[in-house]
Amino acid sequence: MILPDARLQLVLDLVGVLVFAISGGLVAVKKQLDLFGVLVLALVAGLGGGVLRDLLIGVVPPTGVTDWRLVAAGALGGVLTFLWHPAFGRISRIVKVLDAAGLGAFCVSGALTALALGMPDLTCVIVGTLSAIGGGMLRDVLAREVPEVLTRELYAVPAALGATLVVGAHELDLLGPGVALGCAALVFGVRMIAVVLDLNAPRPLRTQPPGTIEP
Amino acid sequence: MILPDARLQLVLDLVGVLVFAISGGLVAVKKQLDLFGVLVLALVAGLGGGVLRDLLIGVVPPTGVTDWRLVAAGALGGVLTFLWHPAFGRISRIVKVLDAAGLGAFCVSGALTALALGMPDLTCVIVGTLSAIGGGMLRDVLAREVPEVLTRELYAVPAALGATLVVGAHELDLLGPGVALGCAALVFGVRMIAVVLDLNAPRPLRTQPPGTIEP
Amino acid sequence: MILPDARLQLVLDLVGVLVFAISGGLVAVKKQLDLFGVLVLALVAGLGGGVLRDLLIGVVPPTGVTDWRLVAAGALGGVLTFLWHPAFGRISRIVKVLDAAGLGAFCVSGALTALALGMPDLTCVIVGTLSAIGGGMLRDVLAREVPEVLTRELYAVPAALGATLVVGAHELDLLGPGVALGCAALVFGVRMIAVVLDLNAPRPLRTQPPGTIEP
Repeated sequence: MILPDARLQLVLDLVGVLVFAISGGLVAVKKQLDLFGVLVLALVAGLGGGVLRDLLIGVVPPTGVTDWRLVAAGALGGVLTFLWHPAFGRISRIVKVLDAAGLGAFCVSGALTALALGMPDLTCVIVGTLSAIGGGMLRDVLAREVPEVLTRELYAVPAALGATLVVGAHELDLLGPGVALGCAALVFGVRMIAVVLDLNAPRPLRTQPPGTIEP
Repeated sequence: MILPDARLQLVLDLVGVLVFAISGGLVAVKKQLDLFGVLVLALVAGLGGGVLRDLLIGVVPPTGVTDWRLVAAGALGGVLTFLWHPAFGRISRIVKVLDAAGLGAFCVSGALTALALGMPDLTCVIVGTLSAIGGGMLRDVLAREVPEVLTRELYAVPAALGATLVVGAHELDLLGPGVALGCAALVFGVRMIAVVLDLNAPRPLRTQPPGTIEP
Repeated sequence: MILPDARLQLVLDLVGVLVFAISGGLVAVKKQLDLFGVLVLALVAGLGGGVLRDLLIGVVPPTGVTDWRLVAAGALGGVLTFLWHPAFGRISRIVKVLDAAGLGAFCVSGALTALALGMPDLTCVIVGTLSAIGGGMLRDVLAREVPEVLTRELYAVPAALGATLVVGAHELDLLGPGVALGCAALVFGVRMIAVVLDLNAPRPLRTQPPGTIEP
């Protein structure tokens, strides 16, 4: 069993926390919240996925409430967003790019954390996926936005794909830092292609004309 | 202390996961989400209550992320719903029937799980109730629906009743598979009667004419 | 290491649960929910913060599902609210006062709990803060209200301040019952001043005229 060293994992976690924190801060800016609203949403979005991951695999207290570097990365993301943020009109698209980067970093880091604890493969895949989509879900629920994970383009799928590839590479003894980073990059790429091309899965067949849909 | 065997518990869990997953899938269909949105809501609704239960009683990782049969039941519920679903107009009522079945299965299974770990009676009742209402709550929050548990007909009450009966039967050494299944059926029945008769608890007295209620 | 005795902590927890439960009940009254909706929101708001705290620091099952006194305080808050509640128009302001009292009680009690388990200082501050804001967040998300923690006046900040003072006093060996109660009172006072004066943090600079903000 070859696992990438702890430094790679920390780098992935820091990148994931920072980009998700900025995404949370941007949603708060779009909602015209004040400095502390920006910080709250930045910390929730940045640290939420990792906290969920750690609760599921029994790492208590979660690293998101013990490691000052992660907390600092989350707060930094909020402050940076507050001080310097784009025009409101472009925020939604920038959030999608940041989410894509966070998805890549967190699905790999989440799967690695679960693998390091000797969890079964299925658990590693689910935990990696939830770790990647959890922060954005908490952000959107708290901000009363439509959860990104339920919108049309592929979102949870690239994350599940990345976690599955990491676990598969581990089974085949192929999992080194290069492969881990490659998986993160692949997830980012797949998600960006889905956003750009507006790729989405098939929708359920309508069985009634839309005009008669119940509210 | 006589507890029903593990097979009964697995059956209750599988039934609960499947019906809640279908309910989650139907809510996603009603919201016109795509295949993966349907799967996400199906898995959240199907597995959410059990994951909440396991986190509360210290079973980590929760069986909902380790037991492939439960995960498969959740995914199956989503796929079935996607392929074959009723007209939009009837979905809300079908969700209520499915929720009733899930409430019955999960409040019993949740109470049994907590009893098997030797938790105090109060904890078994609360954990059984939360296990039953948790998946639907997560589904509704994520889908931005009014949480079923806050709507007018009795919802949490049958679940709490079922968990209480299971714990009481256990105290009296009467808890066998038949009693457990009877409790689940009773919860289903009480909830269905509440839905059909539109039974609901008294509401707070108005102290102002409704027209002056703050937004 | 001098920590206030367990009785002080229980008193703080009971006060916090009761006032947050009343706040949850009032939000349910405002939404015109029935008796059981009032009870559900009261229990969620009253016990949610403490359950979140205990999950984060590995106290399972959480005291909120094992200690009948806390559960009774939450249910009592719901019943009291149902029987006797103010005119709808004043509810939002009364919720703010109750939240202020709960913030003070819970940020101190949460920090004390984490300190008693020997958690690192940063963790104690975060856990104390989350313990204070968690119940209200769950209440608002479930009731589909704008989360109080994201509104304009200072909310999370007094809670974080109180938890920080408790941890700081503990580091300086100054932490007795008087200091702990003083911190709770200070948090209540700061939050009330923020509400009364409509104090709020700076907001992000607009980079577009408001009329062009995306929806």
